[in-house]
Amino acid sequence: MDEEYGLVVKPDSIIAERVALRVVRALERHGITPRVDEYSRRSYRSLSRLPGFNVKRDLIPKIIVVGGDGTLLRTLMELPDPSKTVIMTVRAGKKGFLLDVESYEVEDRVEDFVNGRYKLVEYSRLHAKATAEREGCVLNDIALVMDRAKLVRLSVYHRGERIMGIDGDGLIISTTVGSTAYSLSAGGPIIDPSLEVIVLTPLNPVQLYLRPIILPPDSRLEVEVRQDSNPLYMVLDGQKTYRLEPGDIVTVDSCPRKARIARFKWWENYYERLYSRIFSYL
Amino acid sequence: MDEEYGLVVKPDSIIAERVALRVVRALERHGITPRVDEYSRRSYRSLSRLPGFNVKRDLIPKIIVVGGDGTLLRTLMELPDPSKTVIMTVRAGKKGFLLDVESYEVEDRVEDFVNGRYKLVEYSRLHAKATAEREGCVLNDIALVMDRAKLVRLSVYHRGERIMGIDGDGLIISTTVGSTAYSLSAGGPIIDPSLEVIVLTPLNPVQLYLRPIILPPDSRLEVEVRQDSNPLYMVLDGQKTYRLEPGDIVTVDSCPRKARIARFKWWENYYERLYSRIFSYL
Amino acid sequence: MDEEYGLVVKPDSIIAERVALRVVRALERHGITPRVDEYSRRSYRSLSRLPGFNVKRDLIPKIIVVGGDGTLLRTLMELPDPSKTVIMTVRAGKKGFLLDVESYEVEDRVEDFVNGRYKLVEYSRLHAKATAEREGCVLNDIALVMDRAKLVRLSVYHRGERIMGIDGDGLIISTTVGSTAYSLSAGGPIIDPSLEVIVLTPLNPVQLYLRPIILPPDSRLEVEVRQDSNPLYMVLDGQKTYRLEPGDIVTVDSCPRKARIARFKWWENYYERLYSRIFSYL
Amino acid sequence: MDEEYGLVVKPDSIIAERVALRVVRALERHGITPRVDEYSRRSYRSLSRLPGFNVKRDLIPKIIVVGGDGTLLRTLMELPDPSKTVIMTVRAGKKGFLLDVESYEVEDRVEDFVNGRYKLVEYSRLHAKATAEREGCVLNDIALVMDRAKLVRLSVYHRGERIMGIDGDGLIISTTVGSTAYSLSAGGPIIDPSLEVIVLTPLNPVQLYLRPIILPPDSRLEVEVRQDSNPLYMVLDGQKTYRLEPGDIVTVDSCPRKARIARFKWWENYYERLYSRIFSYL
Repeated sequence: MDEEYGLVVKPDSIIAERVALRVVRALERHGITPRVDEYSRRSYRSLSRLPGFNVKRDLIPKIIVVGGDGTLLRTLMELPDPSKTVIMTVRAGKKGFLLDVESYEVEDRVEDFVNGRYKLVEYSRLHAKATAEREGCVLNDIALVMDRAKLVRLSVYHRGERIMGIDGDGLIISTTVGSTAYSLSAGGPIIDPSLEVIVLTPLNPVQLYLRPIILPPDSRLEVEVRQDSNPLYMVLDGQKTYRLEPGDIVTVDSCPRKARIARFKWWENYYERLYSRIFSYL
Repeated sequence: MDEEYGLVVKPDSIIAERVALRVVRALERHGITPRVDEYSRRSYRSLSRLPGFNVKRDLIPKIIVVGGDGTLLRTLMELPDPSKTVIMTVRAGKKGFLLDVESYEVEDRVEDFVNGRYKLVEYSRLHAKATAEREGCVLNDIALVMDRAKLVRLSVYHRGERIMGIDGDGLIISTTVGSTAYSLSAGGPIIDPSLEVIVLTPLNPVQLYLRPIILPPDSRLEVEVRQDSNPLYMVLDGQKTYRLEPGDIVTVDSCPRKARIARFKWWENYYERLYSRIFSYL
Repeated sequence: MDEEYGLVVKPDSIIAERVALRVVRALERHGITPRVDEYSRRSYRSLSRLPGFNVKRDLIPKIIVVGGDGTLLRTLMELPDPSKTVIMTVRAGKKGFLLDVESYEVEDRVEDFVNGRYKLVEYSRLHAKATAEREGCVLNDIALVMDRAKLVRLSVYHRGERIMGIDGDGLIISTTVGSTAYSLSAGGPIIDPSLEVIVLTPLNPVQLYLRPIILPPDSRLEVEVRQDSNPLYMVLDGQKTYRLEPGDIVTVDSCPRKARIARFKWWENYYERLYSRIFSYL
Repeated sequence: MDEEYGLVVKPDSIIAERVALRVVRALERHGITPRVDEYSRRSYRSLSRLPGFNVKRDLIPKIIVVGGDGTLLRTLMELPDPSKTVIMTVRAGKKGFLLDVESYEVEDRVEDFVNGRYKLVEYSRLHAKATAEREGCVLNDIALVMDRAKLVRLSVYHRGERIMGIDGDGLIISTTVGSTAYSLSAGGPIIDPSLEVIVLTPLNPVQLYLRPIILPPDSRLEVEVRQDSNPLYMVLDGQKTYRLEPGDIVTVDSCPRKARIARFKWWENYYERLYSRIFSYL
């Protein structure tokens, strides 16, 4: 029980703060004093008495994320190597499809987590690279999106063949996990969580006949920003944004560093939870 | 024949320049020396010998536009009052669905135009207004679009009722003419040119059940940027862009100044021309 | 108050029977003994004491329909001339978007109906005709649908132009009212109830670029079943079904006999009621 | 070279007959006299001099199919065990996406086939079973479709969970190969040919939020025809049709007998060929 535990909390949320304090107390009951991510620590005075750590620099073997999907995605993006950390995810608030622990059960799941009673699920991520400075790994999606509705022209290549040519608002390249996020809103299919694939979903293409394409998970893609395209943005998991210019080529392949998440009941009622989330927007 | 004729030409296009020179010669054959929009005049040395005019300031009763849809839309947006000008539209290049005169027939149509042998079609436009500084009329569409894929939250009100609530990439509010432009790519229907309506097409909404809504042409709409929305852009006919912030309300109603376009065969084979344009993107 | 009132009730429904008995009592309180459609009369012993009438033959100036959308659509289809009857519509059960009176308010609305306190709304209908024996008017839609998934090939003509060529499961031709029924499920837009149009929605076409087309309400269409098509069915308002063969031509235009419905709050909260109905299927 | 070769030809097609005669001559040049399927033999007098065989009963190790997709699908459905036969597929006519040999190269490919110079591709098939009499294997899809536009109500179960509830025209359950057939027209995605999955595509569901679901290839599904559904049809590969009634349960899993097809250039330019086929319907 001498492992270190880290805590990352969604900022500016009374609900997240309350849930985080319950996580802290549950850990303390097991003799564990968690270290709190410095950004979260500055947000909440109630957490400032605890020791801090820096998500981007310090290697902590076990981290508990409290918040919504964005909090998890940001944490994964900031960790120097997510494959060296096990993350437990606690949902605070209504939205947060990727986080499987609900607030009412926090104490029980913290006990399970501390005692190793969970299923460790390794999630494949995709790696996007335009240049050495403009690159990163994603759990959900790489979104190539227009700037101010100006037409984007992209060509997608796979195994040397041009498989999609898009004139429109852009393209989403999504993992299985991301298939129920941005890609779904843009007309993509739902991928069963037990199946690993890559989903290409074009964004409002002038080519009305285009449909989403599903590729094997180990595919290597090249997306060319055509010379006659307007500039656009590459958005990684909704967190990091880079500018792309005509002539740029984005390479997409598997990320060597997978995400490792402790799951307690992820597989149960997947579709029920998915539809509930869809209906929560009604 | 003492009326003044203006000429507006798409910049940086050898094809447009050639077609424009044929228009000039055809007019000169009828004893008319056209005045050339100053911006076009600076772009092409071959046109610089002709007298100039300023689209934004000078009232010219008859204008010939040579280029693509963008050239026409920009001209209509710059004219102080398009309802005081008759525009003849000449397509230079492959794309340009709104321009009905093709380059091969330029001489004949210029003769028709000079002799009043055309059908004057008045096109309703929509008027969008966020504040006094952020407003304008459109022939095609008002696009309310996200910035860098950040979720936009909008509520649309009509006759006091909330008719659409969108969490997504935004909303397109389109005229009949615009129904075959951006709205079509985003999943909107094709509106027959003889029917006047307003089309609301949501952009990649999280609310998967949302569908385009078709409203009467004299509808007055209010689009509220919700307090929990990210900032976004209002793009008018793809030409003018304004920033919108949470709390902004965009009012949409009829533009009092219609567009007046001389049509020679607009009604003929509308659908054949439409499908040809769609297929030109294959 | 010497006008005759007729009653048509959805068969085999305890809920409909109860609501119908409340309608009868409310009418009797105003000294009116309604005549009950013979088919409804045979279905419910509790209604058999009342005098009967035949919807298909007897002209009754005022009819109260109790049930769901199907009950109303069937009644309109059976009436020899719906333009000579005013129909009040009472919803019994959860589904029934076209029926505006809910069961809790039956007594108040019957009083309003008897005293002429309602808005008489005239609904345009479409008329479909393949041959003299295969024709009829619809409030909602004309569905041309495949038999056992065998490919149907149709060409749609409007003003002498071919506006749509479909290889697929068929075509829905819908009124404004019908836009929220079958057409909506097939990808058609929502038409505001204050706008009169015709909606063409292709059914699963091989031509992936096809989109719904919206036409003026007075359009005259011809739908040709191509010689290389498989046979199909023409379904009118989900009630009457005719077989169509290759070579058949279906003519669609306005039905001279409109439907006349007494509305009490039809315009209020149209979209709220529409979305509620969509969500009732979740 | 003492193996037996069979020939199956699309009936009533002058083009198919010509191509078939070239196949016969090419085989004869290698000292092979093919046996011709009795149905094809009766269709074409020019083939009647050759020995016959019965696709449904006789085991022939190598069969050449000449025609369109339907000819191949029918042959696979009729063979007692397709896993014991290698099929070479020759396209006669414009449509026929599944057949990779084009008529201009028939002689060269027959020589390759006879000499074993091809890639043997094994295609997974799906097996559908309602009862012992109503079952079969498909290469493309199992379509559960309405009769005369009457609402169908289905529940789909996977791993004990209800993953889709459809009120609408039905459901398509498709293989990877079938993803570009009926499923594509109904809104399904394109599956890369190197990825094995099952695609569920709902047909015009009232539940507007439904999207296609992609499942692993070894999934076992149960589709329940709800008691309140209308009767419907189960159509296997567009070839065999069975009636389903409320209460029926269709089980879908892997077919133990795969299809074995000799491919010469199947992988090359898959997307180019796919888009060409889509555009051939313009």
